[in-house]
Amino acid sequence: MPSKLQRLFVKSPMRAGAGIVLEADQAHYLGTVLRLKPGDHVLLFNGVDGEWRARLDAIGKKKALAALEQQTRPQEPGPDLHYLFAPLKRARQDYMAQKATEMGASLLQPVITRRTIAERVKTDRLAANAIEAAEQCRILRVPEVREPQNLSKLLEQWDPERLLIFADEAASIISPIEALSAQSARPLAVLIGPEGGFEEEERTLLMQQPFVLPVSLGPRVMRADTAAVACLALVNAALGDWR
Amino acid sequence: MPSKLQRLFVKSPMRAGAGIVLEADQAHYLGTVLRLKPGDHVLLFNGVDGEWRARLDAIGKKKALAALEQQTRPQEPGPDLHYLFAPLKRARQDYMAQKATEMGASLLQPVITRRTIAERVKTDRLAANAIEAAEQCRILRVPEVREPQNLSKLLEQWDPERLLIFADEAASIISPIEALSAQSARPLAVLIGPEGGFEEEERTLLMQQPFVLPVSLGPRVMRADTAAVACLALVNAALGDWR
Repeated sequence: MPSKLQRLFVKSPMRAGAGIVLEADQAHYLGTVLRLKPGDHVLLFNGVDGEWRARLDAIGKKKALAALEQQTRPQEPGPDLHYLFAPLKRARQDYMAQKATEMGASLLQPVITRRTIAERVKTDRLAANAIEAAEQCRILRVPEVREPQNLSKLLEQWDPERLLIFADEAASIISPIEALSAQSARPLAVLIGPEGGFEEEERTLLMQQPFVLPVSLGPRVMRADTAAVACLALVNAALGDWR
Repeated sequence: MPSKLQRLFVKSPMRAGAGIVLEADQAHYLGTVLRLKPGDHVLLFNGVDGEWRARLDAIGKKKALAALEQQTRPQEPGPDLHYLFAPLKRARQDYMAQKATEMGASLLQPVITRRTIAERVKTDRLAANAIEAAEQCRILRVPEVREPQNLSKLLEQWDPERLLIFADEAASIISPIEALSAQSARPLAVLIGPEGGFEEEERTLLMQQPFVLPVSLGPRVMRADTAAVACLALVNAALGDWR
């Protein structure tokens, strides 16, 4: 059963017969943790060329070698859905990067707001969490991770074709499904603010943009990582590939 | 600003002028961690009598005493929404109990399925996580936590008035919003299966019940704790209090 095989993300291009070099941490995981041996199989994906079954030819301490045998799934494009978020503290941010990947985000963009708590954003850590979620959840596309950007800068440079859906704690309670379903098909983005919400001036700036759609996530306060999954679920269901 | 005051869950009934005894861990948190002193204020709620501002009269090592001054928010009923789930490993289950509380669940019911991994369910730990989420997220009602129950037993004893929405990985992709929106108002429950899904026989049993509604959560695999938030968000938005 191919789905029981270990899945690993690699950076190499993949085509039938090609040899793939796996990195030290992957070699360690396959050889020492899973105790796989030459001749055993794994599944590899690189975000571009679909998923391939590969035979392990050698497993050493510093690397492992695998030969691609057969494509098991073709590449899927996935939704054009950017995920923008105010950085959180470490454990919650790890979790959020994993969750956004499971929800099909194509890009992770940290946004610096006035109430942002985390001082530095480790984008390599965001990428590692996105890869881990993709490996575990049979996802074929790993979201791109961008460097942090200020909210006002982001809005200045925004492609107006892309709808920016923001979870607005100050919204009057209206149906998020109605608000989303009234939109026509276009590239999408979801923005989740910091714990404590946006400052009033930031909210005003957001509301002035013609490409911004505020949505309400109900009468209860939620943590930012909860709001992320909730909002991405509604967007996928109302406008994305859950239909 | 009352919203900046520390919020604590208590078990005592609350009415104006009443004295409340806070337990040892709460006394430790208020006195040693937050360094509050007699005369400082906190917010208390018990899940029944709304939220009250209370003045600390004494903070000791084993307990603290607080006097209720004024009700700051009346009790809210919250949605009639049961959350049923196959138990997970510890960290993810902690997280899931917190998230279900933020999403407004009124009851947490662990369900034993054939592929359930966790052997024992610590219901006191579930309750502690639900209380923590309620304290942090200004929620007034803490979900009831029930003892684990087998899936087949649960279905036998089910109140057929309550719609049981289950996240069905084997569902053909149809719109979850359409499926949910077609339902009329009634008590609700959401069921999330174990990592790895339900066994075919369990799924057949579920599908035979007249009170069961399967919904699809899209084409990607999700971890169970992600599916929980996603499904509860859709239910709240289509049938609950996010409208």
